[in-house]
Amino acid sequence: MAGVVGTAREEVAVLDANSSFYRALSEGDLAAMEDLWAEAAPVACVHPGWGALRGRDAVMRSWRDIMRAGAPRVSCTAASAHVLGDVAFVVCGERLSGGPRLVATNVFHLEGGRWRMCHHQAGMVAREADEPPPDALA
Amino acid sequence: MAGVVGTAREEVAVLDANSSFYRALSEGDLAAMEDLWAEAAPVACVHPGWGALRGRDAVMRSWRDIMRAGAPRVSCTAASAHVLGDVAFVVCGERLSGGPRLVATNVFHLEGGRWRMCHHQAGMVAREADEPPPDALA
Repeated sequence: MAGVVGTAREEVAVLDANSSFYRALSEGDLAAMEDLWAEAAPVACVHPGWGALRGRDAVMRSWRDIMRAGAPRVSCTAASAHVLGDVAFVVCGERLSGGPRLVATNVFHLEGGRWRMCHHQAGMVAREADEPPPDALA
Repeated sequence: MAGVVGTAREEVAVLDANSSFYRALSEGDLAAMEDLWAEAAPVACVHPGWGALRGRDAVMRSWRDIMRAGAPRVSCTAASAHVLGDVAFVVCGERLSGGPRLVATNVFHLEGGRWRMCHHQAGMVAREADEPPPDALA
């Protein structure tokens, strides 16, 4: 890479991988989800309100269970990609159809020329970023 | 690096940086917090319930506001470090004294031989990881 911060082309490729994640989820496409998640990198996942899941088996089992319960229709909003060599993280909003507003961190690792997901955390948004901060929360 | 996954020594160094974050926060030490956050890498932050903050200025302003309101005493639990070359992410629990249980993702970037934070997302935990998944949430 030329510097610490990735090029626009790399950012587009990361955002494409990020879109693939939301497409696989919304379409209940478990095979696409399995294919997206990294195999060389260690993986972890934090679903909204859950504790942390660690390891590919636990993470993929959770996606299977979520899809079996009925794939949620999730659209991704305001995604920004932050590329650091062969690792990138995306910060984005999530809109559930008729549901709450969420915010997510998605971490990707470049494996065999493809950006593959190695971590996802999503959580509820209770306030806008420009409101004063709540007390005693970090 | 020898492979994709970091060595135990690298993981310890990342966990040390992660501990520095919670120490700076609990002690209300804004200078230590400023020093911990990356300067070469792009930074972002999602406080519990907030939308995403992007850029060093917005992120450091939020820590200043949080510390001004009274530094929360936060202890970090069950942290695991996942090292991918010069980027690493930590997944851990957070305990607020007398407050809710949270789970966090902390991303670090190796800058000048030091692991510096480039992203933090924390959110509430409403359920244990081994309970059945909630419907329509990803």
